[in-house]
Amino acid sequence: MSTQPSINGSVPQRLSQIRELMSREGIHALLVPSADPHLSEYLPGYWQGRQWLSGFHGSVGTLIVTPDFAGVWADSRYWEQASKELRGSGIELVKLQPGQPGPLDWLAEQTPEGGVVAVDGAVIAVASARTLSGKLEERGARLRTDIDLLNDVWSDRPSLPNEPIYQHLPPQATVSRGEKLAKLREVLKERGADWHFIATLDDIAWLFNLRGGDVSFNPVFVSYALISQQQATLFVALSKVSAELRAILEQDGVTLRDYSEVTAALRAVPSGESLQVDPARVTAGLLDNLSSGVKLLEGLNPTTLAKSQKSLADAEHIRRAMEQDGAALCEFFAWLEAALGRERITELTIDEHLTAARTRRPDYVSLSFNTIAAFNANGAMPHYHATEEEHAVIEGDGLLLIDSGGQYLGGTTDITRMVPVGTPTDEQKRDCTRVLKGVIALSRAQFPRGILSPLLDAIARAPIWAESVDYGHGTGHGVGYFLNVHEGPQVIAYQAAAAPQTAMQPGMITSIEPGTYRPGRWGVRIENLVLNREAGKSEFGEFLKFETLTLCPIDTRCLEPSLLTEDEKQWFNGYHAEVRERLSPLLDGAALEWLNTRTAAI
Amino acid sequence: MSTQPSINGSVPQRLSQIRELMSREGIHALLVPSADPHLSEYLPGYWQGRQWLSGFHGSVGTLIVTPDFAGVWADSRYWEQASKELRGSGIELVKLQPGQPGPLDWLAEQTPEGGVVAVDGAVIAVASARTLSGKLEERGARLRTDIDLLNDVWSDRPSLPNEPIYQHLPPQATVSRGEKLAKLREVLKERGADWHFIATLDDIAWLFNLRGGDVSFNPVFVSYALISQQQATLFVALSKVSAELRAILEQDGVTLRDYSEVTAALRAVPSGESLQVDPARVTAGLLDNLSSGVKLLEGLNPTTLAKSQKSLADAEHIRRAMEQDGAALCEFFAWLEAALGRERITELTIDEHLTAARTRRPDYVSLSFNTIAAFNANGAMPHYHATEEEHAVIEGDGLLLIDSGGQYLGGTTDITRMVPVGTPTDEQKRDCTRVLKGVIALSRAQFPRGILSPLLDAIARAPIWAESVDYGHGTGHGVGYFLNVHEGPQVIAYQAAAAPQTAMQPGMITSIEPGTYRPGRWGVRIENLVLNREAGKSEFGEFLKFETLTLCPIDTRCLEPSLLTEDEKQWFNGYHAEVRERLSPLLDGAALEWLNTRTAAI
Repeated sequence: MSTQPSINGSVPQRLSQIRELMSREGIHALLVPSADPHLSEYLPGYWQGRQWLSGFHGSVGTLIVTPDFAGVWADSRYWEQASKELRGSGIELVKLQPGQPGPLDWLAEQTPEGGVVAVDGAVIAVASARTLSGKLEERGARLRTDIDLLNDVWSDRPSLPNEPIYQHLPPQATVSRGEKLAKLREVLKERGADWHFIATLDDIAWLFNLRGGDVSFNPVFVSYALISQQQATLFVALSKVSAELRAILEQDGVTLRDYSEVTAALRAVPSGESLQVDPARVTAGLLDNLSSGVKLLEGLNPTTLAKSQKSLADAEHIRRAMEQDGAALCEFFAWLEAALGRERITELTIDEHLTAARTRRPDYVSLSFNTIAAFNANGAMPHYHATEEEHAVIEGDGLLLIDSGGQYLGGTTDITRMVPVGTPTDEQKRDCTRVLKGVIALSRAQFPRGILSPLLDAIARAPIWAESVDYGHGTGHGVGYFLNVHEGPQVIAYQAAAAPQTAMQPGMITSIEPGTYRPGRWGVRIENLVLNREAGKSEFGEFLKFETLTLCPIDTRCLEPSLLTEDEKQWFNGYHAEVRERLSPLLDGAALEWLNTRTAAI
Repeated sequence: MSTQPSINGSVPQRLSQIRELMSREGIHALLVPSADPHLSEYLPGYWQGRQWLSGFHGSVGTLIVTPDFAGVWADSRYWEQASKELRGSGIELVKLQPGQPGPLDWLAEQTPEGGVVAVDGAVIAVASARTLSGKLEERGARLRTDIDLLNDVWSDRPSLPNEPIYQHLPPQATVSRGEKLAKLREVLKERGADWHFIATLDDIAWLFNLRGGDVSFNPVFVSYALISQQQATLFVALSKVSAELRAILEQDGVTLRDYSEVTAALRAVPSGESLQVDPARVTAGLLDNLSSGVKLLEGLNPTTLAKSQKSLADAEHIRRAMEQDGAALCEFFAWLEAALGRERITELTIDEHLTAARTRRPDYVSLSFNTIAAFNANGAMPHYHATEEEHAVIEGDGLLLIDSGGQYLGGTTDITRMVPVGTPTDEQKRDCTRVLKGVIALSRAQFPRGILSPLLDAIARAPIWAESVDYGHGTGHGVGYFLNVHEGPQVIAYQAAAAPQTAMQPGMITSIEPGTYRPGRWGVRIENLVLNREAGKSEFGEFLKFETLTLCPIDTRCLEPSLLTEDEKQWFNGYHAEVRERLSPLLDGAALEWLNTRTAAI
C-alpha cells in the first residue's frame, strides 16, 4: 500500500535546500499542497512531498515556504497532530478555520508586487490555480506552474506504485462497463461534448469496473481516461494489466495506452472540438497540453454523480457486506470485552484484532482506511492513528474510540463506536449521549429530494448545539461502492458550500458521524452509514429518507439513558432489535452472547 | 401611502404600444423588474411599472416582453394570484422555482445573436445588470440600460411621493446620528474608502434617525446619501424637510441637497478616490455617473449590518412594543370570537377591526404591511390580500389565517395566527400542529454565533418534512427597528445563498414562520419574531439562542395536542404563561378573559 516517506535528513535541512533553489530561480514563495495529478485523498509516496518537506504526516494540509517563513495550514482535525509533529521544525502551524482566510489568501496578501509563487502544476487543480493566479495578478505578482522544485532536492523520492489491475465482476458489479460507457456518452452528447477527460481514480475505476491497489485503502489504480463517442482510452502503466484482461477490455471497446502517453493524447485533441472536464478534479499541468482551440465544457464529471447513486441491486450487496462487517465487529468486541483487564491491550493490538476479524469474512478485500483506535486524550484528535512509536495502553477508566472500515467486493464500510473502559465518568456519558442524539435526529430525518446536503447538517447538530457543544468536522461524507470511503458529490457539513451538485438523490450513501472533542481529555464520535431511500411523493413533492446500513450495537454503558426522549429510545431500541436480528445468524458462541447482551432494550 | 396604479387602458393595449416602441428602437426584449432606484420592497406608484404594464399586482415578479411573448416570472407565493390576474392578458405566468432558471437565464437563452435587451438602468441593481450583460455578451447580444420605454407610454404615471420627514427621537432612538456617523466613518476608514454612497432607504433612515411616509408600511423617505470623512450629504426633495429639522441636521453635520442633484454629486467624486458601494443595493443607472477614475470598493453597506444588530436598549423598547401589539391582538381576537356567527364578518372587516385595535395603542404609527386575513382557500395564497372586489365572508367551517403587523416608535411587529371558524377538520388540525412543531423546534434552538442563517432552516422544517410536507417560502426574514418589516442581512431560508453576510449575530431580529399551503383548500402559517440573544461561551465557542418577542396566544382549538411531544407541550405552556403574565396588565374585560381562556395549559 502507500509508502510513508522516509525520515532521512531533517526538515530544517530540507527547507534550507529548497530555499536555495527558490532563490536561484527567483521564486518568492513555494506552495506544496497535499495533492497528486489525480487529486486523490490518499497519495502514493511519490506525491507525498508536503509530508516529506514539512514532517507533518496528516493527510490534509498545505505547506508554504518563503525565504523567511514556513507554515502548514491544517484544519481542526489535525491541530493536535500538527503541533506535535512540527515542533522544532521551524514550520509554523496555521490553524485553518471555516470562514477564515486560507493559504491561497495568505499568498495573495503576502506576496510582494513582482513576486513569483511556484507550485508544481501537476498537483494543483485548474480551479485552484485560476483562483490563485487571479489573486496574485491583482497584486502584480504571478504564479508559475511549470517547475517541480521538490524533485531536485528529494533524493530518495519513492517510485510510482505498480500493483496489478483486476476486474470488479458480477454479481457485485451490477452494471457492465459497456452500459456505463453508453450512459456516459449520452450525457456527453446532451452537453455537446466531443471528448471527456477524467483524472480522478475513483471515477475511472467505477466506469471501467476495474480495481487496483496503487494507493492505501482505496481500491484504485493510477490512470487517466479519455472518452469520445467512438473511443475510450485508458492510460495506465501497461505492466499492471494482464494479457487476458487487456483482451477483455479491448473487446469492450477500451483501448489501453501507457500512462505517460496522456500528454500526447491531450495534445492530439483536435482544435475546434469540445472537451468536458471538471476544473476542480483535473490539474493545471495536464490541461496545459491542450491546444488553445479546444473548447472546454466545465462541470462535474458525469461519473461522479452516476456512481454516487447506487442501484437497488448494489444496495442489496451493500446490506450483505454490512452484515458481514457487523459480525466481524461483534467478534472483535466480544474478544475486547473479555480481554480488557486480563491481558495487555494497546491501541495497536486493537487494530490487529479488528483487522483479523474482518479478514475472516467472505468477500473482504482490505481496510477502507487506517483504523483509528484512540484511548481517552488520543480520541480528541479526530484523525489520530496509533504508531509503533506512540500509542496508548488501554487501562484505567475512560473512553476508547474505534473508527474503522472495510472494503468488500459488495461494498465499503465505515463505522465508529465508543467503548467504555473501566467506569466512564458522568461527563463522558453525557458527551456520548448528546452525540447519539445527533445521530438519531439525522437518521430519522425525511427531506425533499434534491435538497442540498450541507443544509441538513443543522438537524444533527441541533441537539448538540443545544448544550453549547460543537465539532469542527463535517457530519457526513459520501461513501463509494467497493471504492473510496470518501466520495462526493454530497456532503453533510455546514462548512461546505451548498453547491447544486451536492443535491441529495436516491441511492446515495453518506455517513452520519457527529462528535465531541475535549483536547487532552477524550473524544467521542458515533458513526453509521445511511442510504438515501425514496419516501414517496406527496402534493408537496418527492421526499427521501435514510436507511441505516451500518449494523453494530452502540454500547449503552457509555450512555445516560435518562437523557434520551421516548422517541429517541424507541429509535435506539428499534435499531438494536434489527442489529440483533440480522447479525445473529452470522455469529455463535461468545460473539453471539455479546450481541444479545449489548442489544438489550433500554 | 402608496398609490395603486390606475386601471385605465387594458393590458393588451399597453403591451401593443410597448411593442411598437420596441420595434422602433430595435429592441428585442424589454425587462421590467419590480424595482425602483432604491431597490426597495415597497415601490412608490411612480415605479410600479411592472404592475401597470402586466396587470399582476403581486409585490415581487419580473415581466419580460418580446415581439411574440410576454411572461411574468413569480415565485410560489404568487402563483395563485398571478394566474388569476394574468388571465386573458396574453401574458404567461412562468413559475419560478428554487434552483430552476430565472428570467435573466431565459433572456440569456432566448435572445438571438445581435439582439438587444432593454431595461431602465434606474431600476436594475449593478450586480444584476453585470450578470445579465455578461450572459448576453456570451451570445453576441447586448444590454441597454439608457432608455425608459415605459415613460413614453404610461400617460397617467403617478408622481413621486412627497410626505414630510421627521426625526426618530429618544428614548426610542437609542444611538444619536452623530454616533452612528462616527462609527460608519470608522468602518470606511478600515476599508480604505474615501466615500460611501447609499441608495437604500432603510439604511438612510436608520443612519440619520429620520423617518418618512413615502412608501407603504415602511417609514422611510425617498433619498440618497453620500458620506465621506468630512461630509454627510442627504439628497431629498427639500420640501419634505421643515426649516427646523434642516437646522438640526446641519448642526449634526448633515448637508441637505435636492434629490435630483445626486447625479451631479456622483459625477463630482474625484477621480483617483475610492467609493464604497453595495453592487446589489445600488442601480446601474446611478453608478454610470461616476468618472471612470473612481475606484469602487464593493461590499455590504456597513449600515445594513449595524442596524440589524439591535442594542440592549433597543430590545427593551421592542419588548414594550410587542406587549402593546399583543394586547391589541387580544382585544381584536376577543371581539372576533364573540362576533363570529352573530354578525357578518368578512376578510375586510377583520382588517378594519384589527387595525383599529392597534391604532388605540401608545406609540403606534402605522401598519408594517398590508394585513393578510385569508379564509380557507384564500389562506393557500401566502401573500393574499382581500380587496373590495374580491374577499371572503367568514362563515361555515374552516381556518382563518391572519398575518399582520404594526410600526411603533419602539419597534416593528409581524405576527401570524390561525383562527378556528366553526369546527376545523382533523386534517386542518394536523397541519396547524405540524407547523407549530416547526416553530417550536427553531424557537428552542441554540447555535454557534456566526452560523450562516440559511443553514438553520432545516431545524424548523425537519418536523414538517417528516410528514412529506414542505412550503415554498423562507422560514424567516430579518425585521427592522421601527423600520422595514423585511430587513437583512440574515435570512432563514434554505433557498437563499449562505453568503458570509448572513451570519447570525447578537441583537438580530428574525421571523420564524413555517407554513403549509393546500391550493384551493386552506393555508396554515404561524409566525413569531425572535431576538438573537447571547447564550454564553463554552470551550467550543460562543453560542446564541432565540428570545421569542411576539406575545399572543396560539389558538389550541386549531391543534391536536396529542401530536405534540412532552418537550413541545412544555415549550407551548411556558410560552402561554409568559404571554398571560405580560399582557394581563394591559387588558381588562372581555379581552382579559379571552387571554386567560386562550392561554390555558394543554
